[in-house]
Amino acid sequence: MKRTALIMAGGRGERFWPKSRKNLPKQFLSLTDDGKTMIQLTVERILPIVRLEDIYIATNKNYRHLVMEQLPGLPVENILCEPVGRNTAPCIGLGAVHILKKYEDAVMFVLPSDHLIKFNDVFLTVLKDAAEIAEKGENLVTIGITPDYPETGYGYIKFNPGITEGRAYKVARFVEKPSVEVAKEYLATEEYLWNSGMFTWKVSSILKNMKRFMPDTYDRLMIIRDAIGSCEEEIILEKEFYGMQSQSIDYGIMEKADYIYTIPGAFGWDDVGSWLAIERTKKKNDDGNVVDDNVITVNTHECIIQGGKKLIAVVGLENVVVVDSDDAILICAKDSVSDIKKVVENLRVCNKEEYI
Amino acid sequence: MKRTALIMAGGRGERFWPKSRKNLPKQFLSLTDDGKTMIQLTVERILPIVRLEDIYIATNKNYRHLVMEQLPGLPVENILCEPVGRNTAPCIGLGAVHILKKYEDAVMFVLPSDHLIKFNDVFLTVLKDAAEIAEKGENLVTIGITPDYPETGYGYIKFNPGITEGRAYKVARFVEKPSVEVAKEYLATEEYLWNSGMFTWKVSSILKNMKRFMPDTYDRLMIIRDAIGSCEEEIILEKEFYGMQSQSIDYGIMEKADYIYTIPGAFGWDDVGSWLAIERTKKKNDDGNVVDDNVITVNTHECIIQGGKKLIAVVGLENVVVVDSDDAILICAKDSVSDIKKVVENLRVCNKEEYI
Repeated sequence: MKRTALIMAGGRGERFWPKSRKNLPKQFLSLTDDGKTMIQLTVERILPIVRLEDIYIATNKNYRHLVMEQLPGLPVENILCEPVGRNTAPCIGLGAVHILKKYEDAVMFVLPSDHLIKFNDVFLTVLKDAAEIAEKGENLVTIGITPDYPETGYGYIKFNPGITEGRAYKVARFVEKPSVEVAKEYLATEEYLWNSGMFTWKVSSILKNMKRFMPDTYDRLMIIRDAIGSCEEEIILEKEFYGMQSQSIDYGIMEKADYIYTIPGAFGWDDVGSWLAIERTKKKNDDGNVVDDNVITVNTHECIIQGGKKLIAVVGLENVVVVDSDDAILICAKDSVSDIKKVVENLRVCNKEEYI
Repeated sequence: MKRTALIMAGGRGERFWPKSRKNLPKQFLSLTDDGKTMIQLTVERILPIVRLEDIYIATNKNYRHLVMEQLPGLPVENILCEPVGRNTAPCIGLGAVHILKKYEDAVMFVLPSDHLIKFNDVFLTVLKDAAEIAEKGENLVTIGITPDYPETGYGYIKFNPGITEGRAYKVARFVEKPSVEVAKEYLATEEYLWNSGMFTWKVSSILKNMKRFMPDTYDRLMIIRDAIGSCEEEIILEKEFYGMQSQSIDYGIMEKADYIYTIPGAFGWDDVGSWLAIERTKKKNDDGNVVDDNVITVNTHECIIQGGKKLIAVVGLENVVVVDSDDAILICAKDSVSDIKKVVENLRVCNKEEYI
């Protein structure tokens, strides 16, 4: 069966301020040594198993030009612009009806645009296995990540090791972000995976489930489908999309549907959740610092220093993140990166929109 | 007797990098809340007792335009350009012969251009008293600073409390920068003052002492004097000044001459020796931070944040100095400000002259 992909690239994200902005979110930033942006890496990663013309990017209309710039070979009609953010279920539904307009049915990989994967061969093998399982019946396959440590920032997938479908396990249930104690228990059982937000299914399967569990969204999606290619497409999309309920695919479908399977993946997945991830995505020097070119350090260790055009000199510091952008500079203790959002809040309150 | 002043403004200084540069040293920076530069404040401070046309600025020729810009009312002929730095004795000698060209004799205040004084009335009273003492015979008067704490970064003046001349004490000797133990002893005796590098004497007195203790320098100064106003002035100045030995006035004259007096001053003197001084020269906010306008802090205390045009956001830090300039930014632990010179050294080694 034809393999297609929907890459979700509508996120805004404030955790990479001051590099990430309302008009330049994380998926369009380069956070690795190779200079490629997150969305470029995401597309490149799956090209061995999905043709470029079968890759769809769902994004906010404000980011259309960024997608066009960063993915110049992608057909422009494959850039699907959400008129407004309505969480993942409407986004995936929009992708599904576009694919359905082109193919009678197809396997659909659903992938975030702002994660990194270290072992791509392993990843592609998992996707291919997931596709085979998805092709059977109405299976919905979610890619789980074999956890390395008791992370409390992710949701978990409890699977049933006794019920398998090829390499996949039947999902017992999805669970919310746990406390550290609970996360440790999860790890010990070896029956829990991190919920990565990556899915594989047939377009027909996910739409069938939408019809069942999210009938209003489904009806609106069908109206949108009928308008694709017509001169009313944009106005109908806008009307129907605004009318949809904001809903995650996990809550809207995955937690309710039958035939939910998960494949445990151990391919060096990284959601690049904060500036601290840069220590994993870029090379550390002998002082334990991750620095850009125009940086001088004196007696400074374990710092992340991401430059812009200015020379940055850091003296006598440890465990500090420094990020310079064209109009703003962040200097943040490593143990305070979760407070970066407070800077953005503060800017909003002070009406300094130009920095957000 | 006519009162004149020589303000020494040839220093280069790296301790205020990245604001201070080879082409913009500390004396031309504004480091106080009022926005005035150090040299502007120095001139303004003595205007109640010295007329502007009797104030001379000795500086490097590269800084002539800065002096002209920052002191627009000063006669340009009062800007004395040293062709090369030869320490304080030749600099003071150059000032002396220029004053001598204008007046038969005069009292000459010699002042650094990059210190701050909190209680100006007290300071002016000290200068006036010093002038009275200097007018008698050949007295050389140095202004000592009543020490607040056992500073190890300054030289000290040991005075003899038994021999007075008005408010002044006879100087017993000058001593080098002490260890902290020795500095504590000095403080306990109450017979030691900080050597501030501020002097008062008659032009005739200092030149007489130069003739005795620095005869070669004196002879060259006389040649320079004779050339003032002639078309060879510049070339003769260059030749003779290059020929002079580099010598401080302390070592060259003060430690050897007779009739050396000191007046203890307690006028809130500050040599503004590093970025840490900014906590004394500018206002702290409720978090203990000294910040400029375009700064956001979150959970940040006791920091000095001096901005340029960029927004600076500081999160979760304590006791850090942040200084943004047009092309470089410094982030330095407070206890490491003495390492800022290593940054400048590093820049020199790396041939990044544009940042020095």
